[in-house]
Amino acid sequence: MFQFLNRVLTEAPQSRVHASSFAHRCALRQAKRIVVKLGSAVVTRGDECGLALGRLASIVEQVAMLQNHGREMMIVTSGAVAFGKQRLRHEILLSQSVRQALQSGHNQPKDMSVPALEARACAAAGQSGLMALYEAMFSQYSTCTAQVLVTNLDFHDDEKRQNLHSTLQELLRMNIVPIINTNDAVVPPPEHNSDLHGVISIKDNDSLAARLAVEMKADLLIALSDVEGLYNNPPGTDDAKLIDIFYPGDQHSITFGTKSRVGLGGMEAKVCFKLSNMLKTSKPQFSSEWVKAALWALQGGTSVVIANGTNPKVTGHVITDIVEGKKLGTFFSETKPAGPSVEEQTEMARSSGRILASLQAEKRSEIICRLADLLTEKTEEILAANKLDLEVASSSGRLPSAMLKRLSLSVAKINSLSIGLRQIATSAQNSAGRVLRRTRVAHNLELEQITVPIGVVLVIFEARPDCLPQVSALAIASGNALLLKGGKEAANTNHVLLQLTQEALSMHGLREAVQMVSTREEVEGLCRLDKMIDLIIPRGSFQLVQDIKRAAKGIPVLGHSEGVCHVYVDADASADKVIGIVRDSKCEYPAACNAMETLLIHRDILRTPLFDQIIDMLRTERVRIHAGPRFASYLTFSPSEAKSLRTEYNDLECCVEVVDSMQEAVEHIHKYGSSHTDVIITENAKTAEQFLQQLDSACVFWNASSRFADGYRFGLGAEVGISTARIHARGPVGIEGLLTTKWVLRGDGHTVADFSEQGTQTYLHESLPLEQKEILQRDSS
Amino acid sequence: MFQFLNRVLTEAPQSRVHASSFAHRCALRQAKRIVVKLGSAVVTRGDECGLALGRLASIVEQVAMLQNHGREMMIVTSGAVAFGKQRLRHEILLSQSVRQALQSGHNQPKDMSVPALEARACAAAGQSGLMALYEAMFSQYSTCTAQVLVTNLDFHDDEKRQNLHSTLQELLRMNIVPIINTNDAVVPPPEHNSDLHGVISIKDNDSLAARLAVEMKADLLIALSDVEGLYNNPPGTDDAKLIDIFYPGDQHSITFGTKSRVGLGGMEAKVCFKLSNMLKTSKPQFSSEWVKAALWALQGGTSVVIANGTNPKVTGHVITDIVEGKKLGTFFSETKPAGPSVEEQTEMARSSGRILASLQAEKRSEIICRLADLLTEKTEEILAANKLDLEVASSSGRLPSAMLKRLSLSVAKINSLSIGLRQIATSAQNSAGRVLRRTRVAHNLELEQITVPIGVVLVIFEARPDCLPQVSALAIASGNALLLKGGKEAANTNHVLLQLTQEALSMHGLREAVQMVSTREEVEGLCRLDKMIDLIIPRGSFQLVQDIKRAAKGIPVLGHSEGVCHVYVDADASADKVIGIVRDSKCEYPAACNAMETLLIHRDILRTPLFDQIIDMLRTERVRIHAGPRFASYLTFSPSEAKSLRTEYNDLECCVEVVDSMQEAVEHIHKYGSSHTDVIITENAKTAEQFLQQLDSACVFWNASSRFADGYRFGLGAEVGISTARIHARGPVGIEGLLTTKWVLRGDGHTVADFSEQGTQTYLHESLPLEQKEILQRDSS
Repeated sequence: MFQFLNRVLTEAPQSRVHASSFAHRCALRQAKRIVVKLGSAVVTRGDECGLALGRLASIVEQVAMLQNHGREMMIVTSGAVAFGKQRLRHEILLSQSVRQALQSGHNQPKDMSVPALEARACAAAGQSGLMALYEAMFSQYSTCTAQVLVTNLDFHDDEKRQNLHSTLQELLRMNIVPIINTNDAVVPPPEHNSDLHGVISIKDNDSLAARLAVEMKADLLIALSDVEGLYNNPPGTDDAKLIDIFYPGDQHSITFGTKSRVGLGGMEAKVCFKLSNMLKTSKPQFSSEWVKAALWALQGGTSVVIANGTNPKVTGHVITDIVEGKKLGTFFSETKPAGPSVEEQTEMARSSGRILASLQAEKRSEIICRLADLLTEKTEEILAANKLDLEVASSSGRLPSAMLKRLSLSVAKINSLSIGLRQIATSAQNSAGRVLRRTRVAHNLELEQITVPIGVVLVIFEARPDCLPQVSALAIASGNALLLKGGKEAANTNHVLLQLTQEALSMHGLREAVQMVSTREEVEGLCRLDKMIDLIIPRGSFQLVQDIKRAAKGIPVLGHSEGVCHVYVDADASADKVIGIVRDSKCEYPAACNAMETLLIHRDILRTPLFDQIIDMLRTERVRIHAGPRFASYLTFSPSEAKSLRTEYNDLECCVEVVDSMQEAVEHIHKYGSSHTDVIITENAKTAEQFLQQLDSACVFWNASSRFADGYRFGLGAEVGISTARIHARGPVGIEGLLTTKWVLRGDGHTVADFSEQGTQTYLHESLPLEQKEILQRDSS
Repeated sequence: MFQFLNRVLTEAPQSRVHASSFAHRCALRQAKRIVVKLGSAVVTRGDECGLALGRLASIVEQVAMLQNHGREMMIVTSGAVAFGKQRLRHEILLSQSVRQALQSGHNQPKDMSVPALEARACAAAGQSGLMALYEAMFSQYSTCTAQVLVTNLDFHDDEKRQNLHSTLQELLRMNIVPIINTNDAVVPPPEHNSDLHGVISIKDNDSLAARLAVEMKADLLIALSDVEGLYNNPPGTDDAKLIDIFYPGDQHSITFGTKSRVGLGGMEAKVCFKLSNMLKTSKPQFSSEWVKAALWALQGGTSVVIANGTNPKVTGHVITDIVEGKKLGTFFSETKPAGPSVEEQTEMARSSGRILASLQAEKRSEIICRLADLLTEKTEEILAANKLDLEVASSSGRLPSAMLKRLSLSVAKINSLSIGLRQIATSAQNSAGRVLRRTRVAHNLELEQITVPIGVVLVIFEARPDCLPQVSALAIASGNALLLKGGKEAANTNHVLLQLTQEALSMHGLREAVQMVSTREEVEGLCRLDKMIDLIIPRGSFQLVQDIKRAAKGIPVLGHSEGVCHVYVDADASADKVIGIVRDSKCEYPAACNAMETLLIHRDILRTPLFDQIIDMLRTERVRIHAGPRFASYLTFSPSEAKSLRTEYNDLECCVEVVDSMQEAVEHIHKYGSSHTDVIITENAKTAEQFLQQLDSACVFWNASSRFADGYRFGLGAEVGISTARIHARGPVGIEGLLTTKWVLRGDGHTVADFSEQGTQTYLHESLPLEQKEILQRDSS
């Protein structure tokens, strides 16, 4: 038996982290021969019996593209009945009205209702039109199609089966897409009490597609219908979750696979019995049909993905997405996925995180100190893993040298990392559980607002492996559960560092509070877990932050959007300070988000030696200057004009523009800036204070380099990141970025009705001191 | 001349608030005869010369649907060239290879490149196929089509023009969709140096569509191409913005309209000259072509919308959206839009808001006090407007009585509103500009973190007009600019209240800081202004909050998602407190988000009289009980089983479930709750503290009703809303929900390089007291 998935998975290198459900999906990229089954719900348009043309066209587009890229595609389609019904309805209406006109001669209102149409007649009438449509559509992609009509009975006759096989084989060899449909004209009539819709369902070609896929040794059968896939519980109930990978062997009492096969009939019956609970509320007949078909195909060696082909958001790319290994629908696999899925990891992290949050602050500090110890104890092990990563990176030659530098660890780096962790451990005493506000609402009714962890935080970081223990320590200190996704270039180092972190956590039985997801798991997929992840923190390039902001749907992202930082040189600026601050802001580390991108110069400076000094300094530092339109107009020979005044160069380049006044500088920054960090250089305190006051950027500086916008330099201790958002945390964010608050109200049977006009109570709303309570709380915990 | 838009706008009742660009759009809903022009970019697939089938199919679907709903639809299409090329290429390849085989007989590698194809030949070859495709597609919607081939020259011959007119008129009368294309076979050949693509562009049927639309007196011409519309500046430059409504009369030196018409040729030339700057960077020839065509049609009395038909996100509904009045592309209108657009309102609000934020706190308080005065001074005026609203509401009979109650104002209500505003005025002294943290970073380098307003806040509220002055006062107190969108049921009252608010603001020249957008402006459209609005606060029903959360893309929304609140009755609960708190939590105001939805009862209670007391009380209060599965299993005759344990009933209904312990209650709440407000009733302090500690809801209460979760009851003063988000503000949110922070760093020429290993400076990071600075700041401001 051809076991496509087993083969691919066996050949694949073992992933370091548990994510083999992801590995399963990735295996699909290697599927060569693919059967796409279009259920009637995909082909037809809801209740109206026409075809869903747009849907069909985009499916044809995907199939044609995959075919043109060397895959062998087959389509099993429904829809002839619908197409035929549409056509016959016209004919019947026409003949009816003619008949009526002949018979009655009266001008009576005509009965324009269409009689029930026999499904098989509809199918026969629709077949030619449907094929013509497919052909016209595929011809747009220079793809040839062939019509194949079969019945399930054809598979029972060995000769017919072999003939069919060789026909299809020959078509595939000639690069032709076979379009297969049931030969409805020769099958038994539909059940008596079924309406036309029921007929489509019953005649749905699940089993045909399965048989065909197995017969043709297809690697993959993609079955598209109007359900999302298989659920672990009846869809719509509290606990219903879409199953990502369905491994039939998970069902007890069923042995399944190559070694101990059971009869297909029996297997079907048993599995379907087990599944019956899962399918309780979805259309029963339809569902069990497709599950049966999927299991059949699976046992025959064809992997199956069942997905929704009617969701307008994904229809345009559902097939290509599945073939690219994206998590869509339910994947029926003959191989058991090892390790937890990312959803399971998130759930484990949350429940461990809740225990972590309820630990005393001292115990959380203990864990961090233990991690700090482990880092120094296991330095050699860490460096060995890091060496491996560095070797891979330099041999591939794909990483730029700056990246290599960030990837590389040293004894000194690990030591300072360890020292940093101990500082975080100290600050942990004063993060979660802090009382921010105490109010006596009424007699014996006291309200407290206290800091609490946010919940489950996903941190996505690139290259720098030292990020892992740092972020872990911040999360532990604040009582948050953590999902980590590191760059694959640091996979070995991250693996060791994660083990140490989990070892430290295990001293309080909480190793699952910090989890690492596969480096290959798609960010997009993680961003979809909006009910499970409370905050995403991307730490890395601007591109990374942008990508994540775009992908995150419903999950807040803490990160800076852009860093178009300005330095404004006022008329009253001191020359020394200007040269020092401009050089530092632009050249100290031009790739940083807090580096200067635009230099605004007061018009009066233009005529002074200071102007030449600035330009000379920038030239010496090899900074490429782009002139703003105003600046360009002052010069006879200006440098290249800035394409946009809103550019983040991230390099030794900057824009220079001229303004008339501090006020104009503020307006310029409001218009073109990104509200990150902006600087004024002046000796005039009044001008400076106005600038600081009027500008609504996250960081506004007077006579200081923009590069100070940084958590460490601000004295926040460890930095969670820099935020340009206007809510939650703004600017450099310390550990408080990982905290939220909760309100605790302690009463004595108080009700709101007591405070009504007829009630006995009145609101006091007295502010209470915070300190006293902190002691009380420590006692009670 | 038929002036469709003028007619509609003249008939429409004047909107109270300025939003006539919106009224323009709404007028489109009444367009009956519509020409849809499909540019070649829409019909063909990028560089490959096939048709964009999916796109075409969904356009056909929209046109057919509009036709079936009684509109008269015409399509002007491109694409025959592409279709024909696809077809001829096959033929040529085939004949080439046959020829080569005959000529050479060798097995040499064949030159399979296709010679340049003559566009007109392609068009002729493609026409039949294209029409067949349209026909097949439209037949899916039981819609008949007719092929009409014309040339621009046909319009110059009066007889031909009249023949064409009556043909099309007859087709429309018979409910047939005419599909019109240029008769390429008889037009002059394309320019010599143009490639096939260029040919398509030059032959693009903009002018044909415009002539046809005017000839047929169409109300609307929808021109779909691959550009978004007309920009005020070259697209891609810093200031480029898509023009929503383009009124050619805005161009100086051009008078345009029915009264003083100028020759079309001259008008075209002048407008195009004026427009040339706008179009600098987009494809010049194409752009000026479509602008010319649009202006032509406009002058002929047909409104024009130019939009992108190739954007996959909207293609499926671009035509229906435009016809429904949604803001898509550029609308060429012969009527000048009065009043600012919502984008302009937002910009005005932001710039006034910036001045408001820089006012001294005392001055912001002054404005609020003035508003409080105005409310009492103008009470009669307010009540008169309110009476109008109430009359409309009760006569329509559509508002439920609870809604009517919220809508209605009284002298008492206005007085207490006024008192509330004075309280907000007092608190304004201590909101924006508060110093939260002061750090001496280094010698002479001092850092401050201060509270600042968020920026532009959009508040969407229903029914309750008293919300308007309240929210305005909160925004003014915190220095935020405000966009308000009230319910249309309170339009008159809101109008008066807005005028008073703006009058108060005008004492410091800031009336534009609070703006009201049209009641009819779509929330969806507002939610798209993600670069202009910083925070959205929906105040109203759960449905409203949900809708806005779904629509808001990239703008944070402050609001509660769901309120599935629990009351847990512990084994050690006091019976009196249980009855009081459960009654209050469920019955005091069941529609509130902080009302109890699930009652969790410790198993031990089941056997006690307290259990019967609880059930009796709920029965007396007519609360319908739904049994959780565990509870149901204990009863012989149980009430209806709860469909889901995660239900927010929002009514006199609740779920009752049994748990074994406090621990299990916490787990239940974590699993099914919405982290809003959860209560424990117990006399055991240890159990209570554990519950309060372990539960991660926004509000956790001990022996107090869940209904206390409210900004006023918490003593926060005015309430911005309730948040179930985990970042920014959580639980009942006071004015601090409208504040963010900024970092102010004051130095003396400090650079980061000074602090490097080679540098002269070291970080001090000393915490400084806050009070001293507050005095200093007051001096400097």
